[in-house]
Amino acid sequence: MDGKGPIAAVVPGSFDPVTSGHLDIIERAAGSFQRVIVAVGANPSKNPMFTLSERCEILHEVCGPFPNVEVDILDGLLVEFARSHGALVIVKGLRAVSDFEYEFQQALMNSHMAPDIETFFLMARPEHLFLSSSLIKNVASLGGPITGLVPPTVERRLLDKIE
Amino acid sequence: MDGKGPIAAVVPGSFDPVTSGHLDIIERAAGSFQRVIVAVGANPSKNPMFTLSERCEILHEVCGPFPNVEVDILDGLLVEFARSHGALVIVKGLRAVSDFEYEFQQALMNSHMAPDIETFFLMARPEHLFLSSSLIKNVASLGGPITGLVPPTVERRLLDKIE
Amino acid sequence: MDGKGPIAAVVPGSFDPVTSGHLDIIERAAGSFQRVIVAVGANPSKNPMFTLSERCEILHEVCGPFPNVEVDILDGLLVEFARSHGALVIVKGLRAVSDFEYEFQQALMNSHMAPDIETFFLMARPEHLFLSSSLIKNVASLGGPITGLVPPTVERRLLDKIE
Amino acid sequence: MDGKGPIAAVVPGSFDPVTSGHLDIIERAAGSFQRVIVAVGANPSKNPMFTLSERCEILHEVCGPFPNVEVDILDGLLVEFARSHGALVIVKGLRAVSDFEYEFQQALMNSHMAPDIETFFLMARPEHLFLSSSLIKNVASLGGPITGLVPPTVERRLLDKIE
Amino acid sequence: MDGKGPIAAVVPGSFDPVTSGHLDIIERAAGSFQRVIVAVGANPSKNPMFTLSERCEILHEVCGPFPNVEVDILDGLLVEFARSHGALVIVKGLRAVSDFEYEFQQALMNSHMAPDIETFFLMARPEHLFLSSSLIKNVASLGGPITGLVPPTVERRLLDKIE
Amino acid sequence: MDGKGPIAAVVPGSFDPVTSGHLDIIERAAGSFQRVIVAVGANPSKNPMFTLSERCEILHEVCGPFPNVEVDILDGLLVEFARSHGALVIVKGLRAVSDFEYEFQQALMNSHMAPDIETFFLMARPEHLFLSSSLIKNVASLGGPITGLVPPTVERRLLDKIE
Repeated sequence: MDGKGPIAAVVPGSFDPVTSGHLDIIERAAGSFQRVIVAVGANPSKNPMFTLSERCEILHEVCGPFPNVEVDILDGLLVEFARSHGALVIVKGLRAVSDFEYEFQQALMNSHMAPDIETFFLMARPEHLFLSSSLIKNVASLGGPITGLVPPTVERRLLDKIE
Repeated sequence: MDGKGPIAAVVPGSFDPVTSGHLDIIERAAGSFQRVIVAVGANPSKNPMFTLSERCEILHEVCGPFPNVEVDILDGLLVEFARSHGALVIVKGLRAVSDFEYEFQQALMNSHMAPDIETFFLMARPEHLFLSSSLIKNVASLGGPITGLVPPTVERRLLDKIE
Repeated sequence: MDGKGPIAAVVPGSFDPVTSGHLDIIERAAGSFQRVIVAVGANPSKNPMFTLSERCEILHEVCGPFPNVEVDILDGLLVEFARSHGALVIVKGLRAVSDFEYEFQQALMNSHMAPDIETFFLMARPEHLFLSSSLIKNVASLGGPITGLVPPTVERRLLDKIE
Repeated sequence: MDGKGPIAAVVPGSFDPVTSGHLDIIERAAGSFQRVIVAVGANPSKNPMFTLSERCEILHEVCGPFPNVEVDILDGLLVEFARSHGALVIVKGLRAVSDFEYEFQQALMNSHMAPDIETFFLMARPEHLFLSSSLIKNVASLGGPITGLVPPTVERRLLDKIE
Repeated sequence: MDGKGPIAAVVPGSFDPVTSGHLDIIERAAGSFQRVIVAVGANPSKNPMFTLSERCEILHEVCGPFPNVEVDILDGLLVEFARSHGALVIVKGLRAVSDFEYEFQQALMNSHMAPDIETFFLMARPEHLFLSSSLIKNVASLGGPITGLVPPTVERRLLDKIE
Repeated sequence: MDGKGPIAAVVPGSFDPVTSGHLDIIERAAGSFQRVIVAVGANPSKNPMFTLSERCEILHEVCGPFPNVEVDILDGLLVEFARSHGALVIVKGLRAVSDFEYEFQQALMNSHMAPDIETFFLMARPEHLFLSSSLIKNVASLGGPITGLVPPTVERRLLDKIE
């Protein structure tokens, strides 16, 4: 028995691509919950750099070291995804006040739709506060260094995409 | 098996007095963790209305319906309180941006002192967004209605104190 | 005499579609001002779900119970719309810090253009804090429940659009 | 008929002392409502520079040009003050995000206690964004210039107090 | 010797078009640094009203009175632009909390990439708090007055574009 | 010639005691300006742990490695202190939105009193975001570890004070 509970938690995101900040939230969730399911959203409002299946493939690879982490595609309501995966907890990272307000709105709506599902927030580590998938894609496209900001496999794939 | 994990969580506060908003956070924590320890802080910077032992007595009473909730006095570092109670999780409620910044600072400091202890944040319910112990004490002292904003026992005790 | 002033107030928005939160602001404005004109903006930067005339039709229907509320299309500067409708007051709802900053900027610009026109802000009710037209459209498109978040006629029309 | 409604509005504050920013909010309220009652609060948590009666005297003097403005002492709940003065509207100025959150909490509590009383917010003018009674007292006590930041009578009285 | 240091500073932006607020930041930077280089970014995510070369031409014209200000196109990483221009300082204006968070993220990323380059922030003047290129374009396109909000040459060119 | 300008800059604070975050801002200012004067304010509203002369002594010691940094007591208006020390620049660190709003107010007031003096803001490094003198005093008084959060001499003196 390792101190983790039997509760499954969902960590949702669009992960286009997964950053070191996302991975830290996933790892911390994996340390507190018995099962963690990463929910990879299609995010239809953005023009993605990586396809949904590429993003899942990357997440499978970088989450390999965490045996209690699964990856699945989110193509409906998050609260239904959680229920169908046996999870009553959603875990989200917070970086800034603007995150706070957006996530507050999402959490209230989810709580309205599914009062039995709880959303827990984790504060991003200080060294991850400036990380976002879009800023990293922007820096990489201008030839800037991204080592350490994303997992090594993401760095390679990002540079391949840009070339 | 009830879906709760074996992890113990600490819910800290000064609870002078406990409000319906505090109680909601305690109840939600009690629904997700196997054991919840409410840590009642002395809060030396404020002139309390209720003594520490009164606050503990009230919390024992209002947490009665939740068999997995304990109450204890916090008289040192929160992270040491957590460890000595076998808890690796701290749970805090967030109501507003100003809460967010204060709690962010506290969570970063706690994480610096005890990287193995995780802080999870819960968003307050909309109907609790305007609740704070000090605003309730202020309203009660001016003769305003506080029914529903605090548990019934707190309402009685508050009115006794004010008379 | 019902306690309302002779002043006319404008409640602007894109209302694509009107939510229960919008309707609450309109109703509260209608309780304080003698005439309320709902200004339906074209909002050229977004791809609307409902046409301008559909949005006006819906607003006429849901504002039916308020005899002092009119609906009109806003196709120029808001301050000119207000003046041409004999209104010296703009009423806006505020939900969050991000609303606050955007509305602050708009109010300052309007005050620069028309110092005689005053903008009054109303805080959204707690139960409406998480409502926005775009979130509701997103939830509805994923099959989520929106009953109570929008007027019944909007619920029916939204489901028709999505099918 | 001057375009103002019959509705009375309350403008509350501690006004220790009244600043040019406060006066602007009072004047704008006086332009939109038929009667404005300035409610001067005792503010027991602060060590005031001016007594309640001095603050009322100053407000009477500086509000002289506005025939529809009255001044009265607030020594209970604001919503009861409003009702006893026949006012169903509270008007408050907003300068910053921190104001916004504090006032949001107050407005929600007031709405909980008195759903029939509405709070309207006015954004401070840009040139008043940096004004607060405490900052002005601090600057004046250090010999800094406060001309224009407070009405002339306040400037004289402040300098008298400091000497 | 005029009290200015030998340090060159970069003032970046998309300047589509330059506003009176931008010009104030450039002028204040020119008062504190020996050389100021305005970096005109392509901003690929927006549909610009003025081409890059038009924006540079306008900036050359309005910065004419400041002999120590140069204008150049930014088409890569800002930190590399700064280095290649011999500048170790970036100067940015801040208007609001949302600016603060975005600029915080940018400054942290730039500091990660180039620890030797420092970002200094200047608070916008109160009268410029409501100015943004996009709001001005919106107001102008609706026939609103923009005199004073942009330099005269920008006003003429904006009206030409809109006609 | 070392790339620094001849401009003197003031870094104000109460420094009760100086933290690693303060020291970082002083060091970064010392890297960009020819002379830096640390202005140690009496901060009459707080009950200090270290006397003004202790705080100056500590600052002299920890600023020893920076030959262009001086330390002096601030006992009047900051803008007059700056002028009397031949400085036209004030440098302040920003950690959070609440800092931003407070500092914005101060900077606007200073600019009103002394338009020729400019305030530049530096963002705190991520690892210093959670540091404040009061939090560190609180942690130390509860026996928590503060190594690295303050300079070694401050750590020793803090522990002496607490014993």
